[in-house]
Amino acid sequence: MGLVPVAPAPTMNRREAELLASIEAHLEHAVERSTLAPNLREAVRYALLGGGKRLRPILTLVCAEVSGGRREDVLDAAAAVEMVHAFSLVHDDLPALDNDSLRRGRPTLHVALGEAMAILAGDALLSLAFESAARSPRHPDRLVAELATATTAMITGQVLDTLGGFEASQSPESRLQQVHVNKTGALIRAACRMGAVGVQAPESTIELVSKWGDCVGLMFQVVDDLIDETQTAEHAGKAVGKDRAAGKLTWPSVHGLEATRREIERLVEQSRVVVEPLGADAAPLREIADVLAARTR
Amino acid sequence: MGLVPVAPAPTMNRREAELLASIEAHLEHAVERSTLAPNLREAVRYALLGGGKRLRPILTLVCAEVSGGRREDVLDAAAAVEMVHAFSLVHDDLPALDNDSLRRGRPTLHVALGEAMAILAGDALLSLAFESAARSPRHPDRLVAELATATTAMITGQVLDTLGGFEASQSPESRLQQVHVNKTGALIRAACRMGAVGVQAPESTIELVSKWGDCVGLMFQVVDDLIDETQTAEHAGKAVGKDRAAGKLTWPSVHGLEATRREIERLVEQSRVVVEPLGADAAPLREIADVLAARTR
Repeated sequence: MGLVPVAPAPTMNRREAELLASIEAHLEHAVERSTLAPNLREAVRYALLGGGKRLRPILTLVCAEVSGGRREDVLDAAAAVEMVHAFSLVHDDLPALDNDSLRRGRPTLHVALGEAMAILAGDALLSLAFESAARSPRHPDRLVAELATATTAMITGQVLDTLGGFEASQSPESRLQQVHVNKTGALIRAACRMGAVGVQAPESTIELVSKWGDCVGLMFQVVDDLIDETQTAEHAGKAVGKDRAAGKLTWPSVHGLEATRREIERLVEQSRVVVEPLGADAAPLREIADVLAARTR
Repeated sequence: MGLVPVAPAPTMNRREAELLASIEAHLEHAVERSTLAPNLREAVRYALLGGGKRLRPILTLVCAEVSGGRREDVLDAAAAVEMVHAFSLVHDDLPALDNDSLRRGRPTLHVALGEAMAILAGDALLSLAFESAARSPRHPDRLVAELATATTAMITGQVLDTLGGFEASQSPESRLQQVHVNKTGALIRAACRMGAVGVQAPESTIELVSKWGDCVGLMFQVVDDLIDETQTAEHAGKAVGKDRAAGKLTWPSVHGLEATRREIERLVEQSRVVVEPLGADAAPLREIADVLAARTR
């Protein structure tokens, strides 16, 4: 998936390149046709088109195909998911929140273009996301609802992570779980669901990719926590070691490094079990889970 | 419309009270059923339920009825419009933007609950707005599209107003017009259109209330500029005289006080002409335009 060069299957590589190219073109097109002031459009371009793994829109396209549909039908939904992700990065990086100055190996948006523009460009990305979702050829109303629910959850996750607001009686393990499910899990889950919803898959298929998305979303965040703990900033492309310094709950800080590695393997295995009913059709999902887990190896 | 006690018609008073009550109840319900962290919900309540004229959702309900539909069918759309409005106030008030400390006679959200919470609560309001619009019983996809287009325009307007980004050759008059059409006009126009769209009105009716919304939206902002120039903070319920101090373009600063008053009367007159095809059914729209213009008298 282009996340890390860990020898994916050759067919995967070509397919991946195709998926990425269609996503990039669609994002580019969405920004170009938007009615933004020129300086705002430049800020949105900086935040949205400046690289990134495109994990979430890839999940949307792959889940559409795994559900028996065509990826063309969910390009608007996939772009919408990536825009929500880009919005969240821009706002989370702000001085009042995580105060990060490095993102994807470049200055964060507020460092590059100022705080006012970063706030407004984040807002614009969120608005453009819903414009894009509403433009979907099938089930636009349901896609918007899925995206909005996930966005609200993500914001709740960021509030809990940054400002607290837990029940006093809640254990660190339960708090960590609540942050991860909301902050990262909800949008990854939605990315998968929207792929199935956007091609009018049966409810049983939507449920299946939804459960797979839950496993992979949680695994992705556990891997991220591990990277933050063990890798250099140069390798990760962003500031690392900050979570622990900021006193944030992370998998390694709550459960220890060894349990964190075991949890990743457990989630990969669980994601395999979940998609067993799909048989051979689930191969792309299995490969994605493996590649995501491999980021830490 | 409860904006200023200028002896509206007695029937208007009862109708207005009914409209306001149904909007307040619907907003309250939307916040209560949302899945926000408790501290985030409190922040959203503070920003959304702390008073406000409810002009935009009232326009949505009235335009639904004027279009021959039932207000019940557009309550989700009306709430969505008000949430987008509340989002924009919270973010525009932030220190990096307008840096306002007073809103509706109370401390602004970032003064009351901190900047991080204000950024995230604004984000949550925007997300909840699209959840609400997507929940509409009719044409949810089109309502979301209308709302998203207006939101994007509003953000462009705020960028132009706060950070510039005009064409170098653009005259002050043209810049002012561009700011107003985007920053205030677009959402008021959408509020009206969404009332008609949400009751499946014919396109000709949607166009008619849309044009009326253009007149009233522009008039509303010109009135606001005049209030900022001529009234006390106590009367306005928010900081005044700031626009000119910040070097922002306003109607009085570009055109002078007398021309500003004439423009308001011209827009009221134009709004009357626009809805003439509706005959007696347009009475509520005429009353609203009169009450809005009366804020400065």
